[in-house]
Amino acid sequence: MGKYRILAEEGRAKRAEFETVHGTIQTPVFMNVGTAAAIKGAVSTMDLQGIKTQVELSNTYHLHVRPGDEVVKKMGGLHKFMVWDKPILTDSGGFQVFSLAGLRRIKEEGVYFNSHVDGRKIFMGPEESMQIQSNLASTIAMAFDECPSSVADRKYVQDSVDRTARWLQRCKVKMQELNQREDTINPHQMLFGINQGAIYPDIRIDHAKRITEMDLDGYAVGGLAVGESHEEMYHILEEVVPYLPKDKPTYLMGVGTPANILEGVERGIDFFDCVYPTRNGRHGHVYTNEGKLNLFNQKYELDPRPIEEGCQCPACRHYSRAYIRHLLKAKEMLGMRLCVLHNLYFYNNMMEEIRAALEEGRFASYKRAKLEGMMRR
Amino acid sequence: MGKYRILAEEGRAKRAEFETVHGTIQTPVFMNVGTAAAIKGAVSTMDLQGIKTQVELSNTYHLHVRPGDEVVKKMGGLHKFMVWDKPILTDSGGFQVFSLAGLRRIKEEGVYFNSHVDGRKIFMGPEESMQIQSNLASTIAMAFDECPSSVADRKYVQDSVDRTARWLQRCKVKMQELNQREDTINPHQMLFGINQGAIYPDIRIDHAKRITEMDLDGYAVGGLAVGESHEEMYHILEEVVPYLPKDKPTYLMGVGTPANILEGVERGIDFFDCVYPTRNGRHGHVYTNEGKLNLFNQKYELDPRPIEEGCQCPACRHYSRAYIRHLLKAKEMLGMRLCVLHNLYFYNNMMEEIRAALEEGRFASYKRAKLEGMMRR
Repeated sequence: MGKYRILAEEGRAKRAEFETVHGTIQTPVFMNVGTAAAIKGAVSTMDLQGIKTQVELSNTYHLHVRPGDEVVKKMGGLHKFMVWDKPILTDSGGFQVFSLAGLRRIKEEGVYFNSHVDGRKIFMGPEESMQIQSNLASTIAMAFDECPSSVADRKYVQDSVDRTARWLQRCKVKMQELNQREDTINPHQMLFGINQGAIYPDIRIDHAKRITEMDLDGYAVGGLAVGESHEEMYHILEEVVPYLPKDKPTYLMGVGTPANILEGVERGIDFFDCVYPTRNGRHGHVYTNEGKLNLFNQKYELDPRPIEEGCQCPACRHYSRAYIRHLLKAKEMLGMRLCVLHNLYFYNNMMEEIRAALEEGRFASYKRAKLEGMMRR
Repeated sequence: MGKYRILAEEGRAKRAEFETVHGTIQTPVFMNVGTAAAIKGAVSTMDLQGIKTQVELSNTYHLHVRPGDEVVKKMGGLHKFMVWDKPILTDSGGFQVFSLAGLRRIKEEGVYFNSHVDGRKIFMGPEESMQIQSNLASTIAMAFDECPSSVADRKYVQDSVDRTARWLQRCKVKMQELNQREDTINPHQMLFGINQGAIYPDIRIDHAKRITEMDLDGYAVGGLAVGESHEEMYHILEEVVPYLPKDKPTYLMGVGTPANILEGVERGIDFFDCVYPTRNGRHGHVYTNEGKLNLFNQKYELDPRPIEEGCQCPACRHYSRAYIRHLLKAKEMLGMRLCVLHNLYFYNNMMEEIRAALEEGRFASYKRAKLEGMMRR
């Protein structure tokens, strides 16, 4: 089980560290998303070493479908397969099953659905998800849950979180069993529970209390950033995070913009992940301390400056906006790669700034200045 | 003008070095193709530093169309634009005009054609090509020529090479003038002439003699590897290279496979370029000393070996065939990037081996062993 130590606090915001068998994670942390065991935009794990990445996140569902978790297991697990010796978190596949897969039927035992790659029938329940994640041998496995729509009615949401709570019990039992098997690659694999309940604070709080009793390695808030407003999301965090254990890491799944992250940290979140920096980078949208730039814009045609002056990312250390714009316009993959490297560095570096600000008791002023800067354009 | 020194010879094969304002080129050399000021496959000039690249080659026609050579000039020339301080060779645009552009009319003054990007009308003649290449400020500019089809009849080819010879005279005059202008970025830009004549040895030899008299910085053999057989190509080289000056670099344009390069070196060639390593890499076809592998093949699914044991390229130093195969199957850009890096390294490293073999007088046996190895599968 991971050891979690709070190093500094400011209001609800926590600066902590979390020990894992793959090294200590300094939080708050942004996990870099490598869905199919690769960061989109031609970024390798060697590149991650140079852009302050602490944790890589991969998707159980995608890897189960291709290349297959059995293949990854035979190759020695995800760490060996993609050549990354730092922590990896795998999601449970639940979210993808509910968002990507075709026709699906949810039963007490799990979910029946069709692969989005070849249409073949797949069944995934708590035990299957744990087995797959054990095969992948990530540092942290996520519980198998249902992520109900934020516009679902109370009755549906209540039934769904009740089932998710029952599934969590099964996840825990299965993970304990898998960790004790002889052929397990990572016998120290950790399990995080996931809080659900859409935008109903009372359902979320009740669910948070129930899963907290299960004494897991960490807890996530799931089912946010899926259609509700930012204000609703912040409100839910204010309501529910106090009911999750403070002495464990708290993970806000799939979030978000730099502003979302600053607000999340303020509300006690330790872990974040999001596809924005990679997806935006692939579209030539890059983050700076003065807001996002669209490098396709004509005004960068002759701009000799880096994306951001002073930035130490591999793109800014060498290349101009004019060159990267040309690459994007000419559909050269290198343009996407440079933008993705910059964006991931921007996020990872912002987390480093956040940690320093928390250590020095100046998070509130840091947050205000950062948000003001980013609003400038 | 570049100083060319032969360091060793074996038969017609030459081991030489060629001084330029951007550093000394060790020949035989394979130039790495970055058509639109970028190596396809998300490979940057920083990456080229790590894979033994000596010369980068960019395309005049592509850069004229996008981003525009005036833009590149305003950004300080191609070296500054793409951040590469070693030699760059630009082709003349002639080949692309004849192979890519839509309807075209060839006149004494030059060629009228339509852009392949937006269809707009473009005129390019010897003076325009020199002006564009001067704006790009490459180390070596290529003469503007017509590359007639290898199946064209004698009359057409004879008229064409006569015109190409007249164009070469205009190129030389224009380049001398441009190099003396005050706003020229590279006043030492060199000009290579191009031998043409399809597969008619007598036309080629006559043309070679005429262009040799013009005392240019180097000479290329163009119009090969465009449909004729390998044997025809080797035969043409045997016939025509002896009529090109031995004390200048000789460049075989657009060639070729590793075997083509070995045969070219044997016949006195110094410079090569080809899109094969990048194009094949993007399709998962990778070079090894035991022949090409198609990494999409099922048999690599669980193969923990690098593409080639002992290879020091960035792909082989870290990643397995199994992982790269997965990336290719999952359409992750990283798969293409790793294959392209490997292939360029394979070519650049082979050239280093060739140079060492020539220095030690064992090129013939090296070539035999290399070809035998690559034929194994």
